[in-house]
Amino acid sequence: MLIFAGFPDLRKVKAFRLILWPMQVFSYDHLYRFTQNIFTSIGCSDIDAVTATKALLAADLRGIDSHGVARLSGYIRLWEAKRVNATPAIRIVHETPSTAVVDGDAGLGLVVAPFAMQVAIDKARTAGTGWVSVRNSNHFGIAGYHAMMALEHDMTGIAMTNASALVAPTFSIERMLGTNPIAVAIPANKQPPFVADFATTTAANGKLELLQRKNAATPGGWVQDKEGNTSTDANELKKGGALLPLGSDREHGSHKGYALGSIVDIFSAVLSGASYGPWAPPFPAYVPMPMDMPGKGLGHFFGAMRVDAFRPAEEFKQHMDKWIERFRNATPAPGHDKVLIPGDPEREMEAIRRKDGIPIEESVLNELREVGRKMGIEL
Amino acid sequence: MLIFAGFPDLRKVKAFRLILWPMQVFSYDHLYRFTQNIFTSIGCSDIDAVTATKALLAADLRGIDSHGVARLSGYIRLWEAKRVNATPAIRIVHETPSTAVVDGDAGLGLVVAPFAMQVAIDKARTAGTGWVSVRNSNHFGIAGYHAMMALEHDMTGIAMTNASALVAPTFSIERMLGTNPIAVAIPANKQPPFVADFATTTAANGKLELLQRKNAATPGGWVQDKEGNTSTDANELKKGGALLPLGSDREHGSHKGYALGSIVDIFSAVLSGASYGPWAPPFPAYVPMPMDMPGKGLGHFFGAMRVDAFRPAEEFKQHMDKWIERFRNATPAPGHDKVLIPGDPEREMEAIRRKDGIPIEESVLNELREVGRKMGIEL
Repeated sequence: MLIFAGFPDLRKVKAFRLILWPMQVFSYDHLYRFTQNIFTSIGCSDIDAVTATKALLAADLRGIDSHGVARLSGYIRLWEAKRVNATPAIRIVHETPSTAVVDGDAGLGLVVAPFAMQVAIDKARTAGTGWVSVRNSNHFGIAGYHAMMALEHDMTGIAMTNASALVAPTFSIERMLGTNPIAVAIPANKQPPFVADFATTTAANGKLELLQRKNAATPGGWVQDKEGNTSTDANELKKGGALLPLGSDREHGSHKGYALGSIVDIFSAVLSGASYGPWAPPFPAYVPMPMDMPGKGLGHFFGAMRVDAFRPAEEFKQHMDKWIERFRNATPAPGHDKVLIPGDPEREMEAIRRKDGIPIEESVLNELREVGRKMGIEL
Repeated sequence: MLIFAGFPDLRKVKAFRLILWPMQVFSYDHLYRFTQNIFTSIGCSDIDAVTATKALLAADLRGIDSHGVARLSGYIRLWEAKRVNATPAIRIVHETPSTAVVDGDAGLGLVVAPFAMQVAIDKARTAGTGWVSVRNSNHFGIAGYHAMMALEHDMTGIAMTNASALVAPTFSIERMLGTNPIAVAIPANKQPPFVADFATTTAANGKLELLQRKNAATPGGWVQDKEGNTSTDANELKKGGALLPLGSDREHGSHKGYALGSIVDIFSAVLSGASYGPWAPPFPAYVPMPMDMPGKGLGHFFGAMRVDAFRPAEEFKQHMDKWIERFRNATPAPGHDKVLIPGDPEREMEAIRRKDGIPIEESVLNELREVGRKMGIEL
């Protein structure tokens, strides 16, 4: 999960990328129609195709290119491999006034997650908060999109998911956890909302892939080799190495990143009955499923907290404005213009891309055209 | 907050410290009686004195020496400065089936926090989960102690608190956040519980203090100087520098640590009506209170989730055993015996200290004796 993708000047990044890779730019509406038609073509209902399309393209709009249409062909391959059910009977299998467990029936996470987040929001209406753990799901796109569903209801939204194991715990060389992202969206009044969305690793896998394509080295502290030595090889994961938890090494707090990733894994998968830790199902359809899985599919965890379950919504949102303004005006370090609030870069990127379109890399474009040909849909 | 304090071999650490500093060792019971009498002497009720003593000494037992009796004299100075109310009327000021806001009436956080956590546990009994935001409180000791209160009820416990500003956000030189710890305690069956408890900074302030006393340098990535340059000076905070968020710098994910610390600040203080960000009240009684505080006192946030609000408790706890055993048996990196589960080192330390006693540093001892003399209580 690329977060704060725009921390460096957005225009510079854009120019930089345009030089390095040939890009074609598509309007949101164009990509929307294509993606919706692809989902319909595998058998999704009209409403599910819309739900999945909105969730998927939220990543492209917000500049998290690794999690948007770049993954569409991957989802389709999972459906071809019968690991994704295009017509799932998503249902609540257990509930209390403030909790539920949802079984995704192996549906697209892009469809299961909005269903489950809506359950959390509905619970919060009557109980003050709602907490939903999900089993038997698949990848759900960006966590931030689901967390942000709460905002229009004057609620704080929380979303997390486990994922296939790429991360070694502190003191280990074995891949035990996914990049297990956490998103928290908090409403404000005049200020835009606070939206944090980050992998619990030092660097997201998407950033590694970017460097692989450039044949460039990673900074130290992102990956280790299969013997546990520090490495700067962006291809280390293909050689048996592992991503490092947020903090990089023990001295810099990697045990905290390991703990965070573990909490996401347990809330998402152990609480719901999904498959956890090294048994989490892989995203690439060609990777065999783990043996002896202790649960069903991927797991997610969602929360919604009504702001006025704590204090009057207007009062809270005015204080959030004050919080945001104070932090935005914190003295910047030399060489930096300003302090950013989580969600700032993605929101700025969305404004640009809704206006100027979404650039798609050549390799992604080829994959999309290939999927389109197979399904008889033109990009 | 020192977490995983025992990651290196516990016996080595102990021997190392005994060589460097003269230590006197006290039994838990001895320190308990002394601490309880001190709290009674400032006017705490018998039951509040017991509650505060148990919460405070949990830190010493678990090896988090910076947060235990070492802080007792600091709490007393806050009471002398009339910033701590020894006879607070702690009360629920707002509630829904799954939430509450508690006003701590400027009481000791060591008393307010267990009250609020109990409210969360009681809410969880009927609503499935309970979430309590607290205002008008003070420092509450270690977050892990409060989170662990949920365990005996077959609940997952969550505790966090804001604190006075020592941490600069990414791209800033201004101290805007406290070390804002997060604790999560999750019950298991035959295995001991999973207990994560960590500051959202790269290094806890307690570790910095340890290096100051040794006149030693910090590793890079822990602190920056007042101009925002990397520093290895353990005294940097006294010179206007700042602690760095977990991740250390932008390239290694400090924006994630900044987001985590912010979430703790908002859930603890903006949600409850406590004072937030750079306006959080300071711990040292000689530091003046911030001007124009936007809320009352420090804030905390607690959560309790009944395990069987999601799936049968026995089933969940058996899977937690499986999770813990699998992670404990992950292939260790060369030079390491095994992978640790969050909570392992503190539990091992507690077993040792309950048996062998709690070593107290000379400087702390002098402060405790001074407090004792003032109150007519012998250590």
